[in-house]
Amino acid sequence: MYLEKINSPDDLKNLKIDECTELAKEMRAALIQKLSVCGGHLASNLGVVELTIALHYVFKAPQDKMIFDVSHQTYCHKMLTGRKEAFLYEEKYHSVSGFSNPKESEYDHFHIGHTSTSISLACGMAKARDQKGGCGNVIAVIGDASLDGGQAFEALNFSGELQSGLIVVVNDNNQSICENVGALHKKLNELKNHNGKTKDNYFKALGAEYILVRDGHSLTDLIKAFETVRGTDRLVVVHVCTQKGRGYRFAKEDLENWHWANPFHIDTGEFMRKVPDENYGAIVGEFLLDKIKRDPDIAVVVAATPLCIGFHKERRKEAGKQFIDVGIAEQNGVSVAAGIAKGGGKPVFATNSTFLQRAYDQIEQEMCIGECPVTMIVTHASVFGHGNDTHAGLFDITLLGNIPRLVYLAPTNKQEYLAMLNWSIEQTGAPVAIRVPWTGVCHTEKDVDQDYSRTKYQVVTKGEKLAIIALGSFYQLGERVAEEYQKRTGIQATLVNPRFITGIDEATLGSLEKDHDMVVTLEDGIIRGGFGSRISQFYSAKCMKVKNFGFSMNLPNRFQPIELMKHNGLTPERIADDVISVQGLENFL
Amino acid sequence: MYLEKINSPDDLKNLKIDECTELAKEMRAALIQKLSVCGGHLASNLGVVELTIALHYVFKAPQDKMIFDVSHQTYCHKMLTGRKEAFLYEEKYHSVSGFSNPKESEYDHFHIGHTSTSISLACGMAKARDQKGGCGNVIAVIGDASLDGGQAFEALNFSGELQSGLIVVVNDNNQSICENVGALHKKLNELKNHNGKTKDNYFKALGAEYILVRDGHSLTDLIKAFETVRGTDRLVVVHVCTQKGRGYRFAKEDLENWHWANPFHIDTGEFMRKVPDENYGAIVGEFLLDKIKRDPDIAVVVAATPLCIGFHKERRKEAGKQFIDVGIAEQNGVSVAAGIAKGGGKPVFATNSTFLQRAYDQIEQEMCIGECPVTMIVTHASVFGHGNDTHAGLFDITLLGNIPRLVYLAPTNKQEYLAMLNWSIEQTGAPVAIRVPWTGVCHTEKDVDQDYSRTKYQVVTKGEKLAIIALGSFYQLGERVAEEYQKRTGIQATLVNPRFITGIDEATLGSLEKDHDMVVTLEDGIIRGGFGSRISQFYSAKCMKVKNFGFSMNLPNRFQPIELMKHNGLTPERIADDVISVQGLENFL
Repeated sequence: MYLEKINSPDDLKNLKIDECTELAKEMRAALIQKLSVCGGHLASNLGVVELTIALHYVFKAPQDKMIFDVSHQTYCHKMLTGRKEAFLYEEKYHSVSGFSNPKESEYDHFHIGHTSTSISLACGMAKARDQKGGCGNVIAVIGDASLDGGQAFEALNFSGELQSGLIVVVNDNNQSICENVGALHKKLNELKNHNGKTKDNYFKALGAEYILVRDGHSLTDLIKAFETVRGTDRLVVVHVCTQKGRGYRFAKEDLENWHWANPFHIDTGEFMRKVPDENYGAIVGEFLLDKIKRDPDIAVVVAATPLCIGFHKERRKEAGKQFIDVGIAEQNGVSVAAGIAKGGGKPVFATNSTFLQRAYDQIEQEMCIGECPVTMIVTHASVFGHGNDTHAGLFDITLLGNIPRLVYLAPTNKQEYLAMLNWSIEQTGAPVAIRVPWTGVCHTEKDVDQDYSRTKYQVVTKGEKLAIIALGSFYQLGERVAEEYQKRTGIQATLVNPRFITGIDEATLGSLEKDHDMVVTLEDGIIRGGFGSRISQFYSAKCMKVKNFGFSMNLPNRFQPIELMKHNGLTPERIADDVISVQGLENFL
Repeated sequence: MYLEKINSPDDLKNLKIDECTELAKEMRAALIQKLSVCGGHLASNLGVVELTIALHYVFKAPQDKMIFDVSHQTYCHKMLTGRKEAFLYEEKYHSVSGFSNPKESEYDHFHIGHTSTSISLACGMAKARDQKGGCGNVIAVIGDASLDGGQAFEALNFSGELQSGLIVVVNDNNQSICENVGALHKKLNELKNHNGKTKDNYFKALGAEYILVRDGHSLTDLIKAFETVRGTDRLVVVHVCTQKGRGYRFAKEDLENWHWANPFHIDTGEFMRKVPDENYGAIVGEFLLDKIKRDPDIAVVVAATPLCIGFHKERRKEAGKQFIDVGIAEQNGVSVAAGIAKGGGKPVFATNSTFLQRAYDQIEQEMCIGECPVTMIVTHASVFGHGNDTHAGLFDITLLGNIPRLVYLAPTNKQEYLAMLNWSIEQTGAPVAIRVPWTGVCHTEKDVDQDYSRTKYQVVTKGEKLAIIALGSFYQLGERVAEEYQKRTGIQATLVNPRFITGIDEATLGSLEKDHDMVVTLEDGIIRGGFGSRISQFYSAKCMKVKNFGFSMNLPNRFQPIELMKHNGLTPERIADDVISVQGLENFL
């Protein structure tokens, strides 16, 4: 086995081409084997096996710097740079992360998880190299879909002027997370089909030299191309055509579902962990499609992640022109939605909370200052959203919750979620965002309000001494805290579902002062600048004691949600302990 | 006079071409006259006189929708759409704002102030039109420099696929705020010089049809071009070459300083309000240039606004390759700086706080999660920064102050600012941002700390009962509050310069509990989620009363700083009133 003997790229350089071909087979087998157990970004990594081998064959890392966009496709890079064990031996499977990370290896230069940044980062390294009078190649590897993000253009435009020795490898697998979108994508196909020779080459329009590698699985072609561009003092784009999912039939046939694969049976391609039939994606997908069918003004806009609202292929097809995927381009997505709203349509923009960060300015400026009544659905905004620091769903409350005019709602169950969504779509008074409770689907049999035009908290249980204000996905935790507190003290606490992240219900908060001496807030996000902070501010000059529960600012990487909650004292027992201690009740129990 | 008779675009349509030429002269004269009194975006508006006339001559607004990027160049549009008085009669000069605003006119569709969004907004309107089965042209007017912002690419890429009747007018005046940058700019020049016929046309690469209007001041050529594209069902780019500052010699000869002009003497071109010789731009520009000369690792990165750190033309020239302007592309700017830091350089990225909003994701991901020790200089972050809601400098504390790992510093005077800047540039432990105190240059004769590696507040005056924690640019307000409080109560309050927006100095805060019963925080930003909120959180379960002073969430447009401060109770008298009332001291005085 060749892979077992690769301890660094130097070992690779000693192989002959046909040995490298064997190595590629072994790497694919290792990828499939490991990911069948652990899950991961299978399809994209299967597509870059030869590309990665050729890069390390020609260039001399880590002196030559390779920067992988998003870095979810660095599994092969890790295999070849001293981390093969993590892909060969089950007991070592968890020894590496799914993204590049300088703390893991000197071959990784950045801790990355978001798209479209690699060319900028590479420019910066090239600039530092030149300023220091250094040498060495700097190579950005970026997928075709990541080119849709505006920052990739900004960086090409900049480096096309800089012209200081930068190689951009475009890994064109003709696929985003779902289908590719955008005019550029068509032009890339034309280039492929005309041997790289078409008019109006996007890369040349930005000052780059351009080379096409039509077969991105031919080691010979790849090596030849990289040898040609090695040592350039210009900006060169190497356009490499690859096949996402190559070498594993099931992945190749259903790229969208295999973009990130759950553990699976290798022989049947069956996923071992099934998504529960009842999930917020399916629920809201069905709801929105139904509204689309009844109302031609509705427009559902996504930025490359339609599955976050259950818009799988069939739903997208059924929705027709009322479904819009702008690609990985949230800035454009939010502004297009704002334009639709001003044009009299009813836009719903949906995305994962971590990617929404790219559109803060558009949300603040166009939606809020410009008063465009867009509805935003914010998914994965929870400790249960994603366990990597780069994708953690814990920052949206601070980010969106402090923008003037935005109404940010936090439903606690399915019925409330759909009522809020329906209200938001039909009103034109305010821009609204809804934080989907990502802790699993809950139900209520009680009536839920249909109107959210006024900031009004809901007092669910009226008690005394202690009021628990439990936001959105942590509402159920609030119920358990109330139980625990009653068990220990015999006191029935007041339980409040605030529903509104933005705004303050001063009447309700004021009314608590009469027969409560303490308020606790619970939120599924960082505490600093969060929901609880405004409750603390409200009471800060009064006699009410307040304690905010949520996550601290030290976000670990690759965390387990339950563990992180425990670490932050977010269990009913610990919270009850804290409350009883602040209230000075320990000695009376 | 023709302009006096223009009450709507219909009146324009009745004029003959040579009458329109006369009208253009009148409009230029009105622009120069008004702006000599009020100040404003002179050069850009002088450049679009004929372009705007031709647009309204050919298209039928407001049924046809015109969306102006940034909208700082809509003065001529306002003259032709029922708002001529605001440019003709001095008593009406202030009746319109400097940007487009739907509350002002049905001809304005969006309230805009930031760049690169117009094509997205136009796409949205076109989409809504098509979904509703409507008709009419949708036209985005965007400057060449605004094309550098990634969102403009995202929108072109999207609309190139959509192909649903959208006209993009590129107003190419070959100038950004200062010099143009980027490879695209060179390609636009090639197009100009080769009659629109060059290989690798950027717009065609994104699926657009393309027309060049070489002389953007020829009404005949403009009208002909717009008549050709009117009613298109595709994406068409009309590339119009104009001359910024046309018709006023002083503006044309010094475009950078006339981009936004202060009131001036028409005959001499002399500005009436001079920038004080001592200002933070000049101070930091000199400081950075000196460091650049002594250290080849320093790199100063800006995004089209070099004057915010005093990098005027001569300084830029002297800094040579250690000065980098990435254009209006903050995402790229921050990531390039991160790349430089990883490459061993010492990057300083500087921009206006409101534009920094476009780079939140890159700051959070690359700088902070990725631990790249970039130094950011944040200017105009103050109520004194800019009086338009779209450019208000009041949101950065909430935005940057709640990002893990970032050290956000708030100096209170020149000596502290430069000490913090110097420390930040030379250290590699953390990403750092510095909030320049935009209230005017203050000095201290005391020694200032040189090391900011540990969150430590500075107790400037040790008193009792009341502690005033006065942040950054509001430190001097804190001094005045202390005086007022002492005058009224005879009590010497404690005065704290916290210096750190991020982090909490628990030791200092804890020590205040002994002999103080109240803390007030003062900050030059919105209160919600701001600096004071963490002080409130710290004390919320303790016996300390806290009151946060700053700005509420209801941000008016076109505000006067002093008036907005009064409106928010931010005077020493009002704050002292509030404190005395919370402390219950009224009846004892």
